[in-house]
Amino acid sequence: MSQVTNFAYEQLEIGQRAELIRRVEARDVQLFAAVSGDNNPVHLDAEYAATTMFKGQIAHGMFSGALISAAIACQLPGPGTIYLGQNLSFSRPVKLGDTLRVELEVLEKQPKGRVRMATRVFNQHGEQVVDGEAQVLAPRSAQTLEMPAIPAVTIGN
Amino acid sequence: MSQVTNFAYEQLEIGQRAELIRRVEARDVQLFAAVSGDNNPVHLDAEYAATTMFKGQIAHGMFSGALISAAIACQLPGPGTIYLGQNLSFSRPVKLGDTLRVELEVLEKQPKGRVRMATRVFNQHGEQVVDGEAQVLAPRSAQTLEMPAIPAVTIGN
Repeated sequence: MSQVTNFAYEQLEIGQRAELIRRVEARDVQLFAAVSGDNNPVHLDAEYAATTMFKGQIAHGMFSGALISAAIACQLPGPGTIYLGQNLSFSRPVKLGDTLRVELEVLEKQPKGRVRMATRVFNQHGEQVVDGEAQVLAPRSAQTLEMPAIPAVTIGN
Repeated sequence: MSQVTNFAYEQLEIGQRAELIRRVEARDVQLFAAVSGDNNPVHLDAEYAATTMFKGQIAHGMFSGALISAAIACQLPGPGTIYLGQNLSFSRPVKLGDTLRVELEVLEKQPKGRVRMATRVFNQHGEQVVDGEAQVLAPRSAQTLEMPAIPAVTIGN
């Protein structure tokens, strides 16, 4: 268990940022294939992927979406946030071994607790791989929450 | 291994549809937590989730996004599609045990192989839980591909 303190709507400031860094491992691509059902060989088969325009295995685009959603839900605004919407533009492929930096920024505080946020993802070369915006309902009050352990998962038979 | 035949840009027709049906199991929520890192108790802790406005465990919003992306990548247009963008609007929570129907529809064929698609998700009551649109680059030519097996995954220590 770990504790996470969220940001209530009234605490959020325009320009406030959070970031999440994550190296993309083969394990992530395999897990994302298992949970989504997307078993395309460009993600799972190194030999096939080498013959494509990507010249190697790439992560599922929506894996970056999953990281953005986790950064929102666990960091900014954090637990208690309600996810209303997300726009994603996938501008570059994410390769196995890339280190992604998800950057969140509060863009606008709207009525009734709504917040518009920039959601950008960069690779280790500083190239933007995903651009987009999230629309969320921020928590009404600050809260410190016990977070359950992330489930242990084993891949393979 | 299984074989999947995609739809090339020239084969796609306005109004063409595909659907994917999926029951949301506790396992899906645990896997999505593991791959995204979002370990919020509203997803993972039944006791805590019962005290929230959702009155029970809910799936991560972006899990629906993952199913949409899989339906695009595996069915319509299928393998070889390049995912350019996705808008998602989360209108209702998805609960454990819900059966989701992801519906794709070709809305517009644009120049240079680009296709705009409606991406809608409904629950077993026919209520729409996600609305949105995808922007994709359809495959240039029809192709039948060997799809790798979905990785076997075990949850727990």
